[in-house]
Parts: sequence; structure tokens; C-alpha cells
Amino acid sequence: MALPAYASYQYFTTTQPRPLIAHVEINRASKLNAFHEAMWLELRSVFTQLSTDPDVRAIVLSGAGDRAFTAGLDVQAASEGGVLSSDGEAANLDPARKAAALRRYVAEFQGCISAVERCEKPVICVMHGIALGLAIDIACCADIRLCARDTRFAVKEVDIGLAADIGTLARLPKAVGSQSWVKDVCLTARDFSAAEALAVGFVSQVLDSKAAALGVGLKTAAFIAEKSPVAVQGTKELLNHARDHTVEDNLRYTGVWNAAALQTNDVPAALMSVLQKRKPTFEKL
Amino acid sequence: MALPAYASYQYFTTTQPRPLIAHVEINRASKLNAFHEAMWLELRSVFTQLSTDPDVRAIVLSGAGDRAFTAGLDVQAASEGGVLSSDGEAANLDPARKAAALRRYVAEFQGCISAVERCEKPVICVMHGIALGLAIDIACCADIRLCARDTRFAVKEVDIGLAADIGTLARLPKAVGSQSWVKDVCLTARDFSAAEALAVGFVSQVLDSKAAALGVGLKTAAFIAEKSPVAVQGTKELLNHARDHTVEDNLRYTGVWNAAALQTNDVPAALMSVLQKRKPTFEKL
Amino acid sequence: MALPAYASYQYFTTTQPRPLIAHVEINRASKLNAFHEAMWLELRSVFTQLSTDPDVRAIVLSGAGDRAFTAGLDVQAASEGGVLSSDGEAANLDPARKAAALRRYVAEFQGCISAVERCEKPVICVMHGIALGLAIDIACCADIRLCARDTRFAVKEVDIGLAADIGTLARLPKAVGSQSWVKDVCLTARDFSAAEALAVGFVSQVLDSKAAALGVGLKTAAFIAEKSPVAVQGTKELLNHARDHTVEDNLRYTGVWNAAALQTNDVPAALMSVLQKRKPTFEKL
Amino acid sequence: MALPAYASYQYFTTTQPRPLIAHVEINRASKLNAFHEAMWLELRSVFTQLSTDPDVRAIVLSGAGDRAFTAGLDVQAASEGGVLSSDGEAANLDPARKAAALRRYVAEFQGCISAVERCEKPVICVMHGIALGLAIDIACCADIRLCARDTRFAVKEVDIGLAADIGTLARLPKAVGSQSWVKDVCLTARDFSAAEALAVGFVSQVLDSKAAALGVGLKTAAFIAEKSPVAVQGTKELLNHARDHTVEDNLRYTGVWNAAALQTNDVPAALMSVLQKRKPTFEKL
Amino acid sequence: MALPAYASYQYFTTTQPRPLIAHVEINRASKLNAFHEAMWLELRSVFTQLSTDPDVRAIVLSGAGDRAFTAGLDVQAASEGGVLSSDGEAANLDPARKAAALRRYVAEFQGCISAVERCEKPVICVMHGIALGLAIDIACCADIRLCARDTRFAVKEVDIGLAADIGTLARLPKAVGSQSWVKDVCLTARDFSAAEALAVGFVSQVLDSKAAALGVGLKTAAFIAEKSPVAVQGTKELLNHARDHTVEDNLRYTGVWNAAALQTNDVPAALMSVLQKRKPTFEKL
Amino acid sequence: MALPAYASYQYFTTTQPRPLIAHVEINRASKLNAFHEAMWLELRSVFTQLSTDPDVRAIVLSGAGDRAFTAGLDVQAASEGGVLSSDGEAANLDPARKAAALRRYVAEFQGCISAVERCEKPVICVMHGIALGLAIDIACCADIRLCARDTRFAVKEVDIGLAADIGTLARLPKAVGSQSWVKDVCLTARDFSAAEALAVGFVSQVLDSKAAALGVGLKTAAFIAEKSPVAVQGTKELLNHARDHTVEDNLRYTGVWNAAALQTNDVPAALMSVLQKRKPTFEKL
Repeated sequence: MALPAYASYQYFTTTQPRPLIAHVEINRASKLNAFHEAMWLELRSVFTQLSTDPDVRAIVLSGAGDRAFTAGLDVQAASEGGVLSSDGEAANLDPARKAAALRRYVAEFQGCISAVERCEKPVICVMHGIALGLAIDIACCADIRLCARDTRFAVKEVDIGLAADIGTLARLPKAVGSQSWVKDVCLTARDFSAAEALAVGFVSQVLDSKAAALGVGLKTAAFIAEKSPVAVQGTKELLNHARDHTVEDNLRYTGVWNAAALQTNDVPAALMSVLQKRKPTFEKL
Repeated sequence: MALPAYASYQYFTTTQPRPLIAHVEINRASKLNAFHEAMWLELRSVFTQLSTDPDVRAIVLSGAGDRAFTAGLDVQAASEGGVLSSDGEAANLDPARKAAALRRYVAEFQGCISAVERCEKPVICVMHGIALGLAIDIACCADIRLCARDTRFAVKEVDIGLAADIGTLARLPKAVGSQSWVKDVCLTARDFSAAEALAVGFVSQVLDSKAAALGVGLKTAAFIAEKSPVAVQGTKELLNHARDHTVEDNLRYTGVWNAAALQTNDVPAALMSVLQKRKPTFEKL
Repeated sequence: MALPAYASYQYFTTTQPRPLIAHVEINRASKLNAFHEAMWLELRSVFTQLSTDPDVRAIVLSGAGDRAFTAGLDVQAASEGGVLSSDGEAANLDPARKAAALRRYVAEFQGCISAVERCEKPVICVMHGIALGLAIDIACCADIRLCARDTRFAVKEVDIGLAADIGTLARLPKAVGSQSWVKDVCLTARDFSAAEALAVGFVSQVLDSKAAALGVGLKTAAFIAEKSPVAVQGTKELLNHARDHTVEDNLRYTGVWNAAALQTNDVPAALMSVLQKRKPTFEKL
Repeated sequence: MALPAYASYQYFTTTQPRPLIAHVEINRASKLNAFHEAMWLELRSVFTQLSTDPDVRAIVLSGAGDRAFTAGLDVQAASEGGVLSSDGEAANLDPARKAAALRRYVAEFQGCISAVERCEKPVICVMHGIALGLAIDIACCADIRLCARDTRFAVKEVDIGLAADIGTLARLPKAVGSQSWVKDVCLTARDFSAAEALAVGFVSQVLDSKAAALGVGLKTAAFIAEKSPVAVQGTKELLNHARDHTVEDNLRYTGVWNAAALQTNDVPAALMSVLQKRKPTFEKL
Repeated sequence: MALPAYASYQYFTTTQPRPLIAHVEINRASKLNAFHEAMWLELRSVFTQLSTDPDVRAIVLSGAGDRAFTAGLDVQAASEGGVLSSDGEAANLDPARKAAALRRYVAEFQGCISAVERCEKPVICVMHGIALGLAIDIACCADIRLCARDTRFAVKEVDIGLAADIGTLARLPKAVGSQSWVKDVCLTARDFSAAEALAVGFVSQVLDSKAAALGVGLKTAAFIAEKSPVAVQGTKELLNHARDHTVEDNLRYTGVWNAAALQTNDVPAALMSVLQKRKPTFEKL
Repeated sequence: MALPAYASYQYFTTTQPRPLIAHVEINRASKLNAFHEAMWLELRSVFTQLSTDPDVRAIVLSGAGDRAFTAGLDVQAASEGGVLSSDGEAANLDPARKAAALRRYVAEFQGCISAVERCEKPVICVMHGIALGLAIDIACCADIRLCARDTRFAVKEVDIGLAADIGTLARLPKAVGSQSWVKDVCLTARDFSAAEALAVGFVSQVLDSKAAALGVGLKTAAFIAEKSPVAVQGTKELLNHARDHTVEDNLRYTGVWNAAALQTNDVPAALMSVLQKRKPTFEKL
């Protein structure tokens, strides 16, 4: 059953399978969970709300239905209207003015997807079936990536005539080690399998089925949710900061961050529970 | 047969095995394709020309002959003259003036090799046999790296008393994930095999022979050359930008880049060809 | 036998198993080599001294005893006194003043561990048994990481209520490729094995036992110590610089670095020894 | 009369004194235009709307009434509620949890004020009378700063026990040249006059009265509004980018930006009008 | 009389008014020294050659004739051909392909002007009369800026419908302190006088006439040329590096730079001449 | 009378003219306060100690005697021994090894002077008489710079054959606005007066005599020392951070910093004292 606070969303179903965990499902299975504009706007709302929801400490993101995590951009919807369509108001603009409209459009689209990364709670992305284009953009914003063995991935954008601009080219090279592989899949738009995704480190686990992958995702989320939220959310923040800063800069930022965080009651509570070998409980955050 | 526009080059043979593809061969097999100064100057010319050649959409770079991609710097030639030799004009300079000469020399050498990276078209580097020293510098500038099973790699520079300064130390750590491995091969100058190169992600594919590797390289190049050049060249540019910028910065740059690129005719052409399941053709770029 | 110049240290035993090599052992086996404040202050002293010791060209760092490289922070010692304890002077400070004290404390602690990275000579970290928390912080500062098959690793900090702040979150994401894996082990604090550490590239070799790992570590150190120290130390410096700078910046820095370094006698000595197939000797550095 | 599209705002009056120009007034003169939370949220809305309003090409921002541009934060309102107050829910949080609440609060507050900088249209800030604390944060986000001779400025925050955190410390050092002066006014919280503000370059013009300053502000806005909006808005964007990037980076970004912008009809229109010595008109942007 | 090595240039006259000094004049007085493409290509050649000319230690750059340093881009020439013209081959390209052509064009143009900054010798820019558009781009690349009292400056680009893209927006904000002033002159394209240029620090001296300004420029150049070229050229390099790097980074780079530079004979020679109160002479660089 | 805790220093006299203020005097008037190595090592010790001394909230730094703030490096001492001297052990090193020694030497020297900047308390530098070379390096590390009218400044290093490497070239361009002026004084090594220093913003006040300048310095220090040390020290830290980071980065760091700092008792204490118009007192920090 959907969490009441998230019941009004149309394209994302948010449930609470266990205490302190939210499970967000992309909910447009009939169209392979393909995205149109209202959906990415809603994605931003959902994750912005989760980010400061004190009853949520870890999040699992997956796609509804058997066939797809998401097939990516709903190309038909995109071509029928909006900024990319060839008719309508934009048709009469000069290329510079059209560029301004496109820039604003792309920036807002990027910002919606980035909400998954900005979310203060860890996000575990569980993929299965078709995972194309926008699927990679979204997955790159998550913290931990898992998938079912049947997942078929592709950075599909060059096949529709464009360089991926919603985050894949920015984040994928920093999510895995092999740049030869990144260039290969981004320049060729070829499919890659779960096994290949595991080998290069894009996902950190492959499970036999969607159900199994979801099971591991929820279990991992539950495991994380039992820990100090001060420690967990600090760890996410500091790792995200590390990606885009020098070691020196990150050490300085970390010192300032922990100057407040170490004053939490969670440290003595955690230490005590270690010594007493019992599960600690932590206040909301 | 060499492409006419590239026929005057002495050390690099450029052919067009298929439409829109250039195959550049390092052509000094008698010396294991070892480099002297005239060669790296020529390398820069070749790739600068290819960069804006509208008839080329993807490039394969390999070494002539059976034995080597390249054995690296022609040490004998280097020791016989030029800035590193102990006699001649430089011998009388004080260490600061000698340093100025060396700095200019290294900067120009770096700039020549970097031409492979600056080239706007994707470069697939196909290695075999001996691939030492400068081989790694050059390969790191390519986009996709493949090799034959017999390839023997080494970051050889410490064995001749110097820290590699033509790009390996700058790019290799960002081309693969394991920094322990990078430090290992750079500090020990030990050989590493094709299998090891694949395991760490330095190459993304190992083939049974030079011929097989070249075959895959050319096929991949052909596959890429069929796609929208606006999309492909944008993807290369944005991935190169990503390596050296934060995610935030890259997203902003991407938005500005695509503000013009999305206005291409290639997007509707590509969409149409997807729907009609036929091969699209794209205008020159 | 301890090297005389390092004989006064209490928690670190430094020996010279072969010429030009130092072997540093964390020497508190009775407590699983767990660290208290005096130890990390001493660690800084040892590595600062080694950094400019002309008789040392490569360093192996390991933990004494059979059971642990190090179990990390000595939590009991930490909770009994110092900045983290709830009684004493700090108890009466307001949170801002407590934060100032914590910030200074963390900064100094970070600086002590970073001494391993700042050390101008290559450091090979050989791990075995228990390697928790601070073990990862320290290992990340080393250049090459090896381990015994029995090593049990964990980024343990979240389990005691805090985000790791001594360097793991800054350096681990840049030491390996898979960010999904990094987030996984840092957010869950779960154990990971030697095999997993090898698969993701955290270590570059796994050996059957501590003794075997130490053997390889020492052999690698000896191998490196035979090479030009100008070349080796330059390589370490330039690779460390590369991690935190753009390729462009690193190339420029490299050119300036080598403008002096290429004037070494080691280049002709190394070239000569290659031609004459004999071992070169190099002056102290 | 207020512009209809902005008529619903409570604390900011937006009028259109001349075509293509918006004049935004902080409208709480009875309280010296001091800010409480609803006001900075509204400020964000106003400037976000102006940013893409095609009928606005330049903006003047000033404070209503004779006495103050703004006296800054409404300290009384701040102390009576919200995150800084000592009672309410926050009182029971441990310092780490309180820190999380404060961090979110400050980040949102910063984001509201930054909307002035993010606004794509040039903003001319016209100050008079009292201009304390938040006044400086806001003025630093504007593009051009003018003031009346009677303006009394101060970076007031240290006097209420805190380091300015809404942007002054980030932007003021980059808005003027003398860092000794910046440190002086920020560390002492002393007043500084219009003359001093002009001498250090914080404002670029001082006028005799509020009316005169507003006159010049509106005239300058009108002058800018007559020019190509493609050129003007590009100039603002590229200068803002320059502040936070290297010259190299900015040149690259500029090339990509202008690759689209130079395709505007405004270039031939502007050239023609120069040759024909008549005023050009430009399409909306 | 022109220096023989520079006699073949058509648009730039290079003389040697005193030993070790080069005086470069923009030599198209009949057209107010306005630039067309052949001129900026030549500018790059001249300054690239000067950069490593051992007989030149300081350079003065000025404009021929009484009326102008330079009126900037020769708009007529620009509109009659090349990438910006509306007819010719480019007319049929889609906006993305046109953007690619423009990007390459702007990048090369930027690179030509940047040659003044890249030149290893100090460049003193002496301005007079009209100094518009490109004049500011060029002046920003020089090290020291002087002008005659009659100089009339403007960042003119918005008046022809474009954001300045050859360097002014990248460098001007870092050449002076007042960002309000920078935004003012860049957004309004208004003229500013020598006095204003001095007040904001764009020029560091204003002289009564072109002749007087040139006199001071040459005297300053001569004064610099008498000093150690190792010291002078190092100072230019380190200051240019400082602009685009953190203090920390610049200190590290400086240490590496001076590690070679301090080994010059110029240090003892300079010290000796100080003690003996006589003019030192220094070897070529 | 010297503060007891600082009584053992030989070259720096530290007194407490008023509560919470330290006055540090360079104490080698007989040699114009010229620096030799023992002095800069001591400078580091003094400022490192002051940094965390809870009884000090603001610091004034000046030079003893009537004639000089400091004449800079004691060239005679430097030439008689140490790393720069031409005899001794270093004489036999090859240029690369000598470079290593010089690099370490310069890095340590830089680190000693940077201690003034790293000091957590504001430092007001009061200059008079001769202020050459190292004087500028040191002054650039201070927060506020004042001087007597008789001060004679010069960035003297090029006159002894070297590029300034202890911080002037890193910090001076960021301490003032006019880069033309910076290049002028650094490339020519010419003297500049107090009036010129004020005009470009290097100092923020010029007083009639050393005594007057010291008076203002102490008064300013006293004024600052009365304010919340949490606010003051935070302001210094955040401004120093701003210099070397983007606005975006600084805003994020500021939010994290103030998340702890805003929890101080100083905020209510300061607010209360404002309302009650009495001087607040603040706890130690």
C-alpha cells in the first residue's frame, strides 16, 4: 500500500515494505515505464520529499512490471510536442533563441533527474529487463546499483541523433573505471548485459531475477536503515563531495562536517550497542 | 591505398578501408615503429587534419608490421641529438636555462601526442606485439582501446631514468579504476599482458590476433560512422570534458553544447529511420 | 633488527631487510594493532623521516602479529579520554566551541595519516587478517596495496555512528573504479574479502598467506629500489598530482617537474646499463 | 502600477517604468525593508519569473521608502520562531540533528538570494539609506551596483554572533579588489560610506539622492534593454561563468555558447542599424 | 628599422629600439588598425616567434598612426566573407553543423590572441586613441597596460549583437577589481576614458600623449630587460599560473619551478652586482 | 612585557597590550629585521601557538625599530650557507638532486610563512619603513594591512635573480584588483609608496607614522576582540576559503560550517547585548 504522504503521485508508487524504508516504483508498465515530461517533474517531487522525510532512511528505486526498468525517454511523446517538436511557437525562432529555450529545457530536465542524487538518503537502484537511455541517467544518480540477470542496458542516445545530456556522460565515466568501455558503449549505443555491467563495476551485484534483485535491494536498504542516520547520510554526502573535489578539499570539508556530526547521540548509542551486542535505535533525522 | 589527402606523410599511412573511416598506421616497422621527433610532429599533423576532415567519421590507429604497435621512443635517435643529448649547444647552459629548453621541448612533444585526444572524431587504438612507453601515452589519448592477445605492454620510462612525461601519468590513472595497479606498473616498469590490460579495463576487448583485433576495430569504426556525426562527436567532446570537470560543470556545459546540437536535422532523420527500420544517412560534419 | 635511526619509536618497528628498503611494522599486536593517538602521531614522524632519508628508496608497511593488519581505532582508548569523551573540559562547551575542538582534532589526525601519502618514497601496504576502519584510511594513502587471502576488510565507521573522516571517503572512490561498490561497503560497513578487494582493484595482488604477501611486497620494493630514485620519486609525485588535477594541469606540472629531473645523471646511467645489460647504480636522493 | 503578472506578490512591487524594463521594489518600508522568511521565498519567485519573462530585458532592484534599501534580516522575526529559535521542536535535537536542520535552512535561504544572480537578465541594484547585512548579500548577486550618497553600508553579521552565510563572504571578495578592505569590513562589522564603496569598487557610481540613483539605474536599464537580448544575456552568463572558472575553461565555454548565439538574427540587425545609424529592434528572448 | 627576423610580416612591424627589446606595431593605420583574419593569424606568428627569441627580453605592443590602437574587428571584412557571412557554403548547413564551424572558428581566433599571453616574455601594451572591442581582448593578454590620455575604450561587442568571445569576458573580470564596473562596461558597451581605466586599475599609468606613453613603455621594457631573464620570465609564468589556480596549487607549482630556476648563474651574478653596485649581465634565455 | 607563554622565542617578541590581543614584533632591528632560517621557523611556531591560544582573539604583527618592517631575506646569511650556497654537500649533486633539495627547502619555507594565514585568529599587519621581498610575502598572509606613510615597499626578488617563491606571486594578485599593477611591481622590482599601496588596495589605511599605524592596528584588534570569537574566526575561515573556491563551493562549505557555529551561545548573547545596548562577553575559543 502506498505511503499516504506519497499517495497523490501518479507515475511513482511509493510504499514502505519495512519500517524506515521507502520503495519507489516507476509506474507506467504499459509503456515500458518510458518517461514523458510530467514524469520527470514528478520524480523530482518524490525524491525531494523523501530527502527530508524523517521516517525514511533508505530508498529502493525500481520499475513496475516484468519487462522494463525503463525504456527511457518516451520518444513519441517527445516528438509530438514541447521544445523538440518542429512545429508550434519554437518553429519561428532564430537558432540563438531556440538554443535559449533548449538550454532552459535541458537544465530543468537535468535538475529533475539529479534530485535522486541530491536526496540525502541512500538510494538503491534495482534494474531489470529493458534499461535504456534515461535509465542510465537515473541509475547513475543512485548510490548502489543492482540488477537482474535479464537486464539489457544501452546508452541509446546517439541512435536518435543526440549526445546524452541528462547526466550519463557526466556521471558514467566517474561511476566505473574503464574509460575505454565507457567510450565504447556511449559511442556505439550498443546493448550491454548484466554480466558486462558487473564486470566493469556499473552494478555491484547481479541477481537471478527481478524478484531476487528487489529482495536484495530491500534487504540492503533495511540493513542500512538500522544504522545511525547521522553516519549514513554523512557518508553519502561526503562520498558525493569526494567525486567532484580534490582529496585535500574533501578532507577539509569532512572535518567541518564531522565537527557537528560527531556531537550526535548516535556515537555513544552505537558504541554501547556494539559492546552490548544489541541493536541500537537512533532518533529521527 | 593511401587516402590522397594524406599521401604526403612519411611515417603514417592513412587509408580508407570503408567509407567515412580512416585507418592510420604507424609506419616504421623496421624499427618496431619507434618514434623520433619528426614522427610525433607528423602524428600531430595527421590527426589535426583528420579532426576536421568531413569525409572521416571514425579512425582506427594501429602499428605496421607483425612485431609492434610501437616500441616507444627511439632511444638511440633521442640520445644522438636534440635536447637530451649531452653535447651541442645545450651543454654550456646553466641548469635553469637547460630547464627552459627542456620545458619547451616536453610541452611541444605532449602537444603532438595530445592531438589524438583533441581530434574531434572517435579514435580506436588497436594494439599488438610490443607496446612500450610512448605506446601507452598514445593509447591513453585514444577513445577505445583494443588489443591482440600477444600484446606486451609496459610503462617503461623509469627504466631509462625518467618519469613518463608525455601523458601516461596524467591519463592512465583516469583511464582505469585500480590505482594500486597503476602505481604498480608505473613504478616497476614491469610488463603486463593483454589479459591484465583487459582485467583492469585499460583495453575493452582482447582478440586472438592482430588481424582479428584490427577487424573488430574497423567494424566498430564502421558501426560508429553510420551514426549521426553530430551525436557521435558531441558524445566524444562531452565525455572528454567530463573527465576534467565536476558533474555540475559538465551538466552546464552539456546544456550549452546541446542547445545548438539538438537543432540538427540528424535528430528527425534518426528518429524516422528508427521508426522505418532503415539506415539513416547524415550530412557531412 | 631495527634501523638505528628509527629505534626510538615505540609503536612502529622499522627494519632494513634489504639495502635501500625500509620495512615498517605496526607494532601493537596484543591489541590487534589498534590505534590510539600517540600511535598516529608517531606514524607521522616515522613517514616524515623516511620521506627524506637518502638510504631508503621503497617502503613496506605491514602489521605485526598473525591476526591483524590493524583493527582500526582503539575505540576503548578513544572513549576514555580526549576530544570524543563526554566528560572533561569539553563537556561544558557550547556546540560551536566543541565543533572547533573536533575540527582541529580531526584535521590533525588526518594530517598524521596523510604522511604516508606525502612520503616521497613509494609505500607498499601489505595487509592480512583484520583490516578495519583506520586500516582502510591508511591503505588508501599507500601506493601499492597487496594482501593475504585471509584478510577481512571493512569500512567500519558507520557502525560506530560516524562517517569515516580520516581519508577513506576522500580516497577510496579514487582508488577503485566501481562507485556502486564504494557506496555499498561504506554505507553498509559490511565485511569484504581479499577476493572482492582484488576484483574491484582495491588491492592489486592477493597472496596465500601473510608471509607470502610480505615476500612479494619486499620483492617489489627491492625491484623498485634498484631503479633511478629520480625517476621513481618523480613518478609517485606526478601520479599523486594527477589524481587531483585535470590532464591539462598535470601535463604542465609534469613539464616543469621534468625540466629539472631530466638533467639527472640517472638518465645516461640507466641508458648505459640497458645497452650493457648490467645493473645500474644511482646516487642517493 | 504593478505589472499584472507580478501583482500577487506581497513584499515586492514590480512595475514597468519603460518598455522591457522591470523595477522591483522591496516593499516593507515600515520595517526598513527588513527580511523575514516569507520575503526571501518571494524574492526567489519574483526573480525566477523575471528570468524567463520575454517582456523584460533589464531589471532595477531598490528599496521602498526614504530610509533604507534594507536593514537586513528582521532579527526579531528570526528570534521568534524558526530554526534559530531556542524553543520549539529543535530544542530537543542533539547538535548533529540540529546541524542538519540548520544546513537545510541555510541552503534554502542561500538559494533564494542567489535567484538574483541566476536571473538571466541584468539586475541593477540601486541602494540608499540603510544597507546592512542581507543588503550586501543581495547586492553582491546583482550585476551593477549604484547608490545614493546617504547610503550607510555594513556587513553586520559578526555583531550578532555569526559569520555571514547567505553569500557575502562568498561573493564580496570577488566583487572588489582589495582583500584587506574586505577583511576589515567583514571582521569589524563597521559602517562604510558610499564614498568608500565607490573607492573600492563595490558600487560603480554614487549619486546625490535616492531619486537620482534610481534615475541613473532606470536609464542604464533602458540603455541595456535597447540592445540585442542575445548579446546582453550571453554577456551576463559568460561573465558569471568567468568568475568561477579558469580563463581556459571560460574560453572553451564561450566558444560553445556563441556557436549557437552567433546564429541569431540580432547580429545582422545590429550591424545594419550601426551602418544606417538607426535604432534596431530585436525579437523577444 | 624592422628586425630582420620579423621583416616578412605584413601587418605587424617589429623593431628593436634598444637592445633586448622588441617593439611590435599593429600596422594598418589607414583602417584604424582594424583586424581581419590574416592579421590575427599573423599576430599569433609574431608572438610565438618572440616567445623563444633569445635576443628579446621585453616587448612593447602599440598601434601605428595617431588615431587608434585598434578599432577592433574589421566588421566590413568580417561580414563580407568567412564563417559569419550569410551566403556561401555555410548557408546550407543545419544549425548544429553551423555551430561546429563557428566553434572551430572562435577557438582558433581565441588561440591567436592568447599568443600574446602565452609569450614567455613580458608584454607592455601601450594604447592610444580608439581602443575598441578586440583592443580590449588583446590588451587583457598583455602583462602591463599603459595608455595615452586621449584613449577611448569600449567593450563594443554587444552593440553588434554578440557577447565578446575572444577573451575580454574571460580576462577583464580578473584584470581589475570592481565587478560592478566590469558588468557596466560589458553590458552597456559604453565608452570609458583613460582616467576611468586608471581608476579601476585596467591600466596602471596614463600619459599625456601617445609619444609619452610609448616612451614610458619602452623605458619600462628596457628596465625589465636589464634584469635576469630567468627571474623575469619565471615571474610572468608564476603570476599567470596564479590567476587560474588556488594559492596552494600555485605554491606547489612555484616550488617545482624554482627548483630548476634557482640553479641559474643569474642569482650569484645578480647578488654580486648588488654588492658591487654595477649592472649585471645575464646569458641569453 | 612579553606574554609568558611566548617568552622563549628569540626573534619575535609577543606582548599583550590589551586583553585578548597579542602584539607580535619582528625583533631584529639591528639588521632591519631581515630574516634567516631560524627566524621563519620561529615565525611558524609563534603563529601556530597563537592559532589555538584561547586567550588571544586578534593579533597585530609589526617590526621592531624605526627603520624597517623587514628588509626581507638576509641575503648574506642565505649566501653563506644552506641550500643556496655554492659550496658544501650540495655542490656535488646533479641538477635533479639539487632540485629535490631546493624543492623541499622552498616548500618548508613557504609553509612557515603560510602559518600567518593558517592562524585561526585575525592578523593585522602594520608596516613601516623598509618593507621588501619577504615583507610582501608575509603581509599577503595577514588579513588586514595598514602602514605608515614612510613605508617603502618592493617585490624585490627579480633584482637578486629569482622569481618570488614564498607566496607573493600566489597571493598578491588575489589581494588587490589591478593585475597590470601587480605585473608592473613584480616584473620591475621597483619601489612603491604607501600612497600607491593604498590606491591599489594593498593596504586599507595609511597613517602618519609608525606609532599612529600601530595605534590604529591595536585599536582595530581590540575592536575585533570584543566580538564573538565564533563569528570572527568563522568569518576569517570562510573568506580564506572563498578566495580559492567557486561561489557555489563556498556557499556549500559555509552552510556546513555554520550548521555547527550557529549553535553557539554567542548568538543569543550578541543579540541580547544589541537590544540592551551593553557590551557582550563571550566564552573562550
